[in-house]
Amino acid sequence: MLSATPRTRLGRSKERASHDRDDLHEILDSGLICHLGVVRDGYPMVVPTGYGRIGDTLYLHGSTGARSLRLGDGTQVCVTVTHLDAIVYSRSVFDHSVNYRSAMIYGVARLVTDEDERLAGLKALTEQLAPGQWDYARPPSRKEMAATAVLALSLEESSVKIRTGMPKDEEEDYALPVWAGVLPLVTSWGRPTTDPLVLDGVDIPIHIASRK
Amino acid sequence: MLSATPRTRLGRSKERASHDRDDLHEILDSGLICHLGVVRDGYPMVVPTGYGRIGDTLYLHGSTGARSLRLGDGTQVCVTVTHLDAIVYSRSVFDHSVNYRSAMIYGVARLVTDEDERLAGLKALTEQLAPGQWDYARPPSRKEMAATAVLALSLEESSVKIRTGMPKDEEEDYALPVWAGVLPLVTSWGRPTTDPLVLDGVDIPIHIASRK
Repeated sequence: MLSATPRTRLGRSKERASHDRDDLHEILDSGLICHLGVVRDGYPMVVPTGYGRIGDTLYLHGSTGARSLRLGDGTQVCVTVTHLDAIVYSRSVFDHSVNYRSAMIYGVARLVTDEDERLAGLKALTEQLAPGQWDYARPPSRKEMAATAVLALSLEESSVKIRTGMPKDEEEDYALPVWAGVLPLVTSWGRPTTDPLVLDGVDIPIHIASRK
Repeated sequence: MLSATPRTRLGRSKERASHDRDDLHEILDSGLICHLGVVRDGYPMVVPTGYGRIGDTLYLHGSTGARSLRLGDGTQVCVTVTHLDAIVYSRSVFDHSVNYRSAMIYGVARLVTDEDERLAGLKALTEQLAPGQWDYARPPSRKEMAATAVLALSLEESSVKIRTGMPKDEEEDYALPVWAGVLPLVTSWGRPTTDPLVLDGVDIPIHIASRK
Protein backbone atom coordinates (compact mmCIF):
# COMPACT_ATOMS: atom_id res chain seq x y z
CA MET A 1 0.00 0.00 0.00
CA LEU A 2 1.15 3.50 -0.78
CA SER A 3 0.71 6.01 1.99
CA ALA A 4 -1.89 8.73 1.58
CA THR A 5 -0.77 12.21 2.52
CA PRO A 6 -2.44 15.55 1.89
CA ARG A 7 -0.33 15.79 -1.27
CA THR A 8 -1.02 12.35 -2.64
CA ARG A 9 -4.69 12.11 -1.71
CA LEU A 10 -6.46 12.90 -4.92
CA GLY A 11 -9.07 15.60 -5.02
CA ARG A 12 -10.81 14.40 -8.14
CA SER A 13 -10.98 11.23 -10.19
CA LYS A 14 -10.56 9.00 -7.17
CA GLU A 15 -11.48 6.03 -9.31
CA ARG A 16 -8.23 6.50 -11.17
CA ALA A 17 -5.98 6.35 -8.13
CA SER A 18 -4.04 3.19 -7.46
CA HIS A 19 -2.50 2.46 -4.09
CA ASP A 20 -0.74 -0.63 -5.30
CA ARG A 21 3.03 -0.57 -4.94
CA ASP A 22 3.32 -3.02 -7.85
CA ASP A 23 1.66 -0.47 -10.14
CA LEU A 24 4.13 2.18 -8.96
CA HIS A 25 7.11 -0.07 -9.63
CA GLU A 26 5.77 -1.14 -13.03
CA ILE A 27 5.26 2.47 -14.16
CA LEU A 28 8.75 3.45 -13.02
CA ASP A 29 10.49 0.37 -14.38
CA SER A 30 8.94 0.66 -17.83
CA GLY A 31 9.76 4.35 -18.17
CA LEU A 32 12.81 5.99 -19.71
CA ILE A 33 12.79 9.55 -18.42
CA CYS A 34 10.98 11.43 -15.70
CA HIS A 35 9.98 15.06 -15.34
CA LEU A 36 11.65 16.49 -12.28
CA GLY A 37 10.10 19.48 -10.57
CA VAL A 38 11.95 21.77 -8.23
CA VAL A 39 11.29 25.23 -6.82
CA ARG A 40 13.95 27.68 -7.85
CA ASP A 41 13.91 31.25 -6.53
CA GLY A 42 10.26 30.68 -5.72
CA TYR A 43 9.35 29.55 -9.22
CA PRO A 44 8.52 26.06 -10.46
CA MET A 45 10.98 24.42 -12.85
CA VAL A 46 10.34 21.15 -14.67
CA VAL A 47 13.16 19.34 -16.45
CA PRO A 48 13.24 15.98 -18.22
CA THR A 49 15.94 13.73 -16.81
CA GLY A 50 16.97 10.13 -16.28
CA TYR A 51 16.35 8.04 -13.20
CA GLY A 52 16.79 4.57 -11.82
CA ARG A 53 15.06 2.54 -9.11
CA ILE A 54 16.44 0.18 -6.48
CA GLY A 55 13.76 -1.19 -4.16
CA ASP A 56 11.86 1.77 -2.80
CA THR A 57 14.48 4.36 -3.65
CA LEU A 58 14.67 6.41 -6.83
CA TYR A 59 18.05 7.67 -7.98
CA LEU A 60 18.70 10.86 -9.92
CA HIS A 61 21.97 12.37 -10.98
CA GLY A 62 23.46 15.63 -12.00
CA SER A 63 26.80 17.10 -12.78
CA THR A 64 28.31 18.66 -9.69
CA GLY A 65 28.60 21.81 -11.80
CA ALA A 66 25.09 21.90 -13.24
CA ARG A 67 23.48 25.11 -12.13
CA SER A 68 20.31 24.44 -14.08
CA LEU A 69 18.92 22.03 -11.52
CA ARG A 70 20.39 23.26 -8.26
CA LEU A 71 19.53 19.83 -7.00
CA GLY A 72 21.27 19.06 -3.77
CA ASP A 73 20.91 17.51 -0.39
CA GLY A 74 17.56 18.50 1.08
CA THR A 75 16.01 19.82 -2.12
CA GLN A 76 12.24 19.35 -2.25
CA VAL A 77 11.37 17.57 -5.48
CA CYS A 78 8.44 16.09 -7.34
CA VAL A 79 9.28 13.39 -9.86
CA THR A 80 6.61 12.43 -12.38
CA VAL A 81 6.77 9.54 -14.84
CA THR A 82 3.97 9.35 -17.39
CA HIS A 83 3.08 6.75 -19.99
CA LEU A 84 0.56 7.96 -22.52
CA ASP A 85 -1.20 4.83 -23.75
CA ALA A 86 -4.05 6.02 -25.94
CA ILE A 87 -6.30 8.88 -26.96
CA VAL A 88 -9.87 8.33 -25.79
CA TYR A 89 -12.33 9.63 -28.37
CA SER A 90 -15.71 10.43 -26.86
CA ARG A 91 -19.00 11.60 -28.36
CA SER A 92 -18.61 15.16 -27.07
CA VAL A 93 -15.52 17.33 -27.27
CA PHE A 94 -15.55 17.81 -23.50
CA ASP A 95 -15.34 14.15 -22.58
CA HIS A 96 -12.21 13.43 -24.61
CA SER A 97 -9.51 11.94 -22.47
CA VAL A 98 -6.35 9.87 -22.54
CA ASN A 99 -5.50 6.46 -21.23
CA TYR A 100 -2.34 6.76 -19.21
CA ARG A 101 -0.31 5.50 -16.30
CA SER A 102 1.37 8.11 -14.19
CA ALA A 103 3.43 8.09 -11.01
CA MET A 104 4.22 11.15 -8.91
CA ILE A 105 6.79 10.99 -6.15
CA TYR A 106 7.17 13.78 -3.62
CA GLY A 107 10.06 14.06 -1.26
CA VAL A 108 13.37 15.48 -0.23
CA ALA A 109 16.42 14.57 -2.27
CA ARG A 110 19.24 13.04 -0.28
CA LEU A 111 22.77 13.51 -1.57
CA VAL A 112 24.33 10.07 -1.64
CA THR A 113 27.82 10.03 -0.18
CA ASP A 114 28.49 6.32 0.34
CA GLU A 115 30.61 5.19 -2.63
CA ASP A 116 28.90 1.80 -2.92
CA GLU A 117 25.46 3.39 -3.00
CA ARG A 118 26.66 6.04 -5.46
CA LEU A 119 27.87 3.30 -7.80
CA ALA A 120 24.68 1.27 -7.37
CA GLY A 121 22.57 4.35 -8.07
CA LEU A 122 24.50 5.19 -11.21
CA LYS A 123 24.22 1.60 -12.39
CA ALA A 124 20.44 1.77 -11.89
CA LEU A 125 20.33 5.04 -13.84
CA THR A 126 22.36 3.60 -16.72
CA GLU A 127 20.45 0.34 -16.84
CA GLN A 128 17.10 2.15 -16.85
CA LEU A 129 18.03 3.95 -20.05
CA ALA A 130 20.23 1.31 -21.62
CA PRO A 131 19.85 -2.15 -20.08
CA GLY A 132 22.95 -4.30 -20.32
CA GLN A 133 25.31 -1.39 -20.85
CA TRP A 134 26.75 -1.22 -17.33
CA ASP A 135 28.63 -4.47 -17.91
CA TYR A 136 29.31 -3.82 -21.61
CA ALA A 137 30.65 -0.26 -21.89
CA ARG A 138 33.68 1.24 -20.13
CA PRO A 139 33.05 1.58 -16.38
CA PRO A 140 33.21 5.02 -14.76
CA SER A 141 36.61 6.42 -13.91
CA ARG A 142 37.43 7.96 -10.56
CA LYS A 143 37.35 11.40 -12.19
CA GLU A 144 33.92 10.78 -13.71
CA MET A 145 32.61 9.54 -10.37
CA ALA A 146 33.89 12.67 -8.66
CA ALA A 147 32.14 14.91 -11.20
CA THR A 148 28.74 13.33 -10.63
CA ALA A 149 26.24 13.99 -7.90
CA VAL A 150 23.93 11.08 -7.10
CA LEU A 151 20.67 11.87 -5.33
CA ALA A 152 18.24 9.48 -3.69
CA LEU A 153 14.51 9.92 -3.27
CA SER A 154 12.32 7.66 -1.18
CA LEU A 155 9.22 6.30 -2.91
CA GLU A 156 7.31 6.54 0.35
CA GLU A 157 5.17 9.51 -0.64
CA SER A 158 3.92 8.50 -4.06
CA SER A 159 0.69 8.57 -5.97
CA VAL A 160 -0.29 6.55 -8.99
CA LYS A 161 -3.01 7.37 -11.48
CA ILE A 162 -4.16 4.98 -14.17
CA ARG A 163 -6.89 5.35 -16.75
CA THR A 164 -7.85 2.51 -19.05
CA GLY A 165 -10.76 1.61 -21.26
CA MET A 166 -13.51 3.30 -23.20
CA PRO A 167 -14.85 6.85 -23.00
CA LYS A 168 -17.32 7.78 -20.31
CA ASP A 169 -19.87 9.88 -22.11
CA GLU A 170 -22.85 11.79 -20.78
CA GLU A 171 -25.88 9.52 -20.67
CA GLU A 172 -27.75 11.35 -23.42
CA ASP A 173 -24.74 11.40 -25.75
CA TYR A 174 -24.80 7.63 -26.26
CA ALA A 175 -27.71 8.22 -28.66
CA LEU A 176 -25.56 10.40 -30.94
CA PRO A 177 -24.38 8.96 -34.28
CA VAL A 178 -20.76 9.77 -33.37
CA TRP A 179 -17.90 7.27 -33.40
CA ALA A 180 -16.18 6.76 -30.06
CA GLY A 181 -13.36 4.55 -28.95
CA VAL A 182 -9.69 4.32 -28.20
CA LEU A 183 -6.71 5.04 -30.44
CA PRO A 184 -3.63 3.39 -28.92
CA LEU A 185 -0.26 5.10 -28.94
CA VAL A 186 2.43 2.51 -29.60
CA THR A 187 6.07 3.01 -28.74
CA SER A 188 8.72 0.74 -30.22
CA TRP A 189 12.42 0.66 -30.98
CA GLY A 190 13.56 1.48 -34.49
CA ARG A 191 16.63 0.11 -36.26
CA PRO A 192 19.86 1.00 -34.46
CA THR A 193 22.28 3.25 -36.35
CA THR A 194 25.96 2.53 -35.82
CA ASP A 195 28.34 5.40 -35.06
CA PRO A 196 30.64 5.60 -38.17
CA LEU A 197 33.61 5.77 -35.79
CA VAL A 198 32.98 2.31 -34.30
CA LEU A 199 36.00 0.04 -34.88
CA ASP A 200 35.81 -2.45 -37.75
CA GLY A 201 34.57 -5.85 -36.66
CA VAL A 202 32.60 -4.61 -33.67
CA ASP A 203 29.04 -5.82 -34.10
CA ILE A 204 25.95 -4.52 -32.37
CA PRO A 205 25.55 -6.56 -29.18
CA ILE A 206 22.48 -8.73 -28.78
CA HIS A 207 21.16 -6.79 -25.75
CA ILE A 208 20.80 -3.73 -27.96
CA ALA A 209 19.74 -5.45 -31.19
CA SER A 210 17.01 -7.38 -29.38
CA ARG A 211 15.87 -4.65 -27.00
CA LYS A 212 12.18 -4.94 -26.20
CA MET B 1 14.37 34.65 -31.60
CA LEU B 2 13.40 33.55 -28.13
CA SER B 3 14.27 35.91 -25.34
CA ALA B 4 17.04 34.95 -22.93
CA THR B 5 16.27 35.50 -19.28
CA PRO B 6 18.15 34.27 -16.20
CA ARG B 7 15.80 31.30 -16.17
CA THR B 8 16.09 30.34 -19.82
CA ARG B 9 19.79 31.01 -20.26
CA LEU B 10 21.32 27.58 -20.02
CA GLY B 11 24.09 26.92 -17.58
CA ARG B 12 25.43 23.85 -19.33
CA SER B 13 25.17 22.23 -22.74
CA LYS B 14 24.89 25.54 -24.51
CA GLU B 15 25.35 23.76 -27.80
CA ARG B 16 21.99 22.12 -27.29
CA ALA B 17 20.04 25.33 -26.88
CA SER B 18 17.92 26.56 -29.75
CA HIS B 19 16.65 30.11 -29.90
CA ASP B 20 14.52 29.46 -32.94
CA ARG B 21 10.82 30.09 -32.51
CA ASP B 22 10.08 27.57 -35.27
CA ASP B 23 11.73 24.84 -33.18
CA LEU B 24 9.59 25.84 -30.21
CA HIS B 25 6.39 25.72 -32.24
CA GLU B 26 7.32 22.40 -33.84
CA ILE B 27 8.01 20.77 -30.47
CA LEU B 28 4.74 22.03 -29.05
CA ASP B 29 2.63 21.24 -32.11
CA SER B 30 3.88 17.67 -32.38
CA GLY B 31 3.34 16.91 -28.70
CA LEU B 32 0.31 15.41 -27.00
CA ILE B 33 0.71 16.22 -23.33
CA CYS B 34 2.91 18.53 -21.28
CA HIS B 35 4.24 18.32 -17.75
CA LEU B 36 2.96 21.29 -15.80
CA GLY B 37 4.92 22.46 -12.78
CA VAL B 38 3.45 24.62 -10.03
CA VAL B 39 4.51 25.49 -6.51
CA ARG B 40 1.96 24.36 -3.98
CA ASP B 41 2.39 25.17 -0.29
CA GLY B 42 6.05 25.78 -1.07
CA TYR B 43 6.56 22.40 -2.70
CA PRO B 44 6.99 21.56 -6.38
CA MET B 45 4.21 19.62 -8.09
CA VAL B 46 4.43 18.20 -11.61
CA VAL B 47 1.32 16.90 -13.37
CA PRO B 48 0.80 15.62 -16.89
CA THR B 49 -1.93 17.51 -18.70
CA GLY B 50 -3.17 18.58 -22.11
CA TYR B 51 -2.45 21.86 -23.84
CA GLY B 52 -3.03 23.73 -27.06
CA ARG B 53 -1.25 26.53 -28.89
CA ILE B 54 -2.57 29.53 -30.75
CA GLY B 55 0.18 31.79 -32.06
CA ASP B 56 2.44 32.61 -29.15
CA THR B 57 -0.03 31.62 -26.45
CA LEU B 58 -0.34 28.23 -24.81
CA TYR B 59 -3.70 27.20 -23.40
CA LEU B 60 -4.27 24.91 -20.42
CA HIS B 61 -7.49 23.92 -18.77
CA GLY B 62 -8.82 22.57 -15.56
CA SER B 63 -12.10 21.89 -13.90
CA THR B 64 -13.18 24.86 -11.82
CA GLY B 65 -13.43 22.39 -8.94
CA ALA B 66 -10.07 20.67 -9.36
CA ARG B 67 -8.09 21.22 -6.19
CA SER B 68 -5.18 19.12 -7.44
CA LEU B 69 -3.77 21.89 -9.61
CA ARG B 70 -4.82 25.04 -7.83
CA LEU B 71 -4.13 26.69 -11.12
CA GLY B 72 -5.61 30.11 -11.30
CA ASP B 73 -5.07 33.63 -12.46
CA GLY B 74 -1.54 34.68 -11.62
CA THR B 75 -0.17 31.23 -10.83
CA GLN B 76 3.51 30.87 -11.65
CA VAL B 77 3.94 27.84 -13.90
CA CYS B 78 6.56 25.96 -15.85
CA VAL B 79 5.29 23.91 -18.77
CA THR B 80 7.63 21.33 -20.27
CA VAL B 81 7.03 19.29 -23.42
CA THR B 82 9.56 16.57 -24.18
CA HIS B 83 9.99 14.28 -27.16
CA LEU B 84 12.36 11.41 -26.50
CA ASP B 85 13.74 10.47 -29.92
CA ALA B 86 16.47 7.93 -29.24
CA ILE B 87 18.83 6.36 -26.75
CA VAL B 88 22.44 7.31 -27.46
CA TYR B 89 24.76 4.40 -26.73
CA SER B 90 28.31 5.51 -26.05
CA ARG B 91 31.54 3.62 -25.37
CA SER B 92 31.55 4.46 -21.67
CA VAL B 93 28.64 4.21 -19.26
CA PHE B 94 29.04 7.88 -18.33
CA ASP B 95 28.62 9.27 -21.82
CA HIS B 96 25.28 7.62 -22.49
CA SER B 97 22.67 10.14 -23.45
CA VAL B 98 19.37 10.60 -25.23
CA ASN B 99 18.38 12.41 -28.37
CA TYR B 100 15.45 14.60 -27.53
CA ARG B 101 13.59 17.82 -28.22
CA SER B 102 12.34 19.69 -25.23
CA ALA B 103 10.57 23.00 -24.68
CA MET B 104 10.21 24.74 -21.33
CA ILE B 105 7.90 27.69 -20.90
CA TYR B 106 7.96 29.84 -17.80
CA GLY B 107 5.34 32.36 -16.96
CA VAL B 108 2.27 33.46 -15.13
CA ALA B 109 -1.02 31.80 -16.01
CA ARG B 110 -3.77 34.18 -17.01
CA LEU B 111 -7.35 33.12 -16.39
CA VAL B 112 -9.18 33.64 -19.67
CA THR B 113 -12.52 35.38 -19.20
CA ASP B 114 -13.42 36.41 -22.75
CA GLU B 115 -15.90 33.80 -24.05
CA ASP B 116 -14.49 33.82 -27.59
CA GLU B 117 -10.94 33.27 -26.35
CA ARG B 118 -12.16 30.57 -23.93
CA LEU B 119 -13.80 28.73 -26.80
CA ALA B 120 -10.75 29.16 -29.04
CA GLY B 121 -8.46 27.90 -26.28
CA LEU B 122 -10.61 24.84 -25.67
CA LYS B 123 -10.72 24.13 -29.39
CA ALA B 124 -6.91 24.31 -29.50
CA LEU B 125 -6.71 21.92 -26.52
CA THR B 126 -9.11 19.44 -28.11
CA GLU B 127 -7.47 19.59 -31.53
CA GLN B 128 -4.01 19.08 -30.05
CA LEU B 129 -5.08 15.75 -28.57
CA ALA B 130 -7.62 14.73 -31.18
CA PRO B 131 -7.38 16.68 -34.44
CA GLY B 132 -10.65 16.95 -36.33
CA GLN B 133 -12.82 16.26 -33.31
CA TRP B 134 -13.93 19.82 -32.57
CA ASP B 135 -16.09 19.82 -35.69
CA TYR B 136 -17.05 16.13 -35.45
CA ALA B 137 -18.11 15.49 -31.83
CA ARG B 138 -20.84 17.26 -29.88
CA PRO B 139 -19.86 20.88 -29.12
CA PRO B 140 -19.59 22.04 -25.50
CA SER B 141 -22.78 22.96 -23.72
CA ARG B 142 -23.18 26.13 -21.69
CA LYS B 143 -22.97 24.06 -18.51
CA GLU B 144 -19.74 22.37 -19.62
CA MET B 145 -18.23 25.72 -20.54
CA ALA B 146 -19.11 27.11 -17.10
CA ALA B 147 -17.42 24.17 -15.38
CA THR B 148 -14.13 24.67 -17.17
CA ALA B 149 -11.34 27.08 -16.40
CA VAL B 150 -9.18 28.09 -19.38
CA LEU B 151 -5.74 29.47 -18.68
CA ALA B 152 -3.37 31.21 -21.06
CA LEU B 153 0.41 31.27 -20.90
CA SER B 154 2.59 33.46 -23.07
CA LEU B 155 5.41 31.68 -24.91
CA GLU B 156 7.60 34.74 -24.42
CA GLU B 157 9.88 33.19 -21.81
CA SER B 158 10.74 29.85 -23.36
CA SER B 159 13.78 27.70 -23.82
CA VAL B 160 14.33 24.91 -26.29
CA LYS B 161 16.87 22.12 -26.03
CA ILE B 162 17.57 19.68 -28.82
CA ARG B 163 20.08 16.86 -29.01
CA THR B 164 20.59 14.90 -32.19
CA GLY B 165 23.23 12.60 -33.62
CA MET B 166 25.89 10.24 -32.43
CA PRO B 167 27.51 9.87 -29.01
CA LYS B 168 30.28 12.22 -27.99
CA ASP B 169 32.82 9.96 -26.37
CA GLU B 170 36.04 10.78 -24.57
CA GLU B 171 38.89 10.96 -27.08
CA GLU B 172 40.64 7.84 -25.79
CA ASP B 173 37.43 5.78 -25.76
CA TYR B 174 37.16 5.75 -29.55
CA ALA B 175 39.88 3.08 -29.54
CA LEU B 176 37.71 0.72 -27.48
CA PRO B 177 36.12 -2.30 -29.19
CA VAL B 178 32.69 -1.23 -27.98
CA TRP B 179 29.64 -0.71 -30.18
CA ALA B 180 28.21 2.79 -30.12
CA GLY B 181 25.33 4.41 -31.91
CA VAL B 182 21.74 5.46 -31.72
CA LEU B 183 18.62 3.40 -31.02
CA PRO B 184 15.56 5.36 -32.18
CA LEU B 185 12.35 5.39 -30.20
CA VAL B 186 9.42 5.28 -32.60
CA THR B 187 5.92 6.36 -31.67
CA SER B 188 2.99 5.40 -33.86
CA TRP B 189 -0.76 4.95 -33.70
CA GLY B 190 -2.14 1.46 -33.23
CA ARG B 191 -5.47 0.15 -34.53
CA PRO B 192 -8.43 2.03 -33.12
CA THR B 193 -10.83 0.06 -30.93
CA THR B 194 -14.50 0.98 -31.25
CA ASP B 195 -16.57 1.54 -28.11
CA PRO B 196 -19.10 -1.37 -28.09
CA LEU B 197 -21.84 1.18 -27.36
CA VAL B 198 -21.36 3.07 -30.65
CA LEU B 199 -24.58 3.03 -32.68
CA ASP B 200 -24.86 0.51 -35.50
CA GLY B 201 -23.80 1.92 -38.85
CA VAL B 202 -21.47 4.57 -37.42
CA ASP B 203 -18.07 4.04 -39.01
CA ILE B 204 -14.75 5.34 -37.79
CA PRO B 205 -14.21 8.72 -39.43
CA ILE B 206 -11.30 9.17 -41.80
CA HIS B 207 -9.56 11.80 -39.62
CA ILE B 208 -9.17 9.16 -36.90
CA ALA B 209 -8.55 6.13 -39.11
CA SER B 210 -5.83 7.96 -41.03
CA ARG B 211 -4.26 9.85 -38.14
CA LYS B 212 -0.53 10.39 -38.64
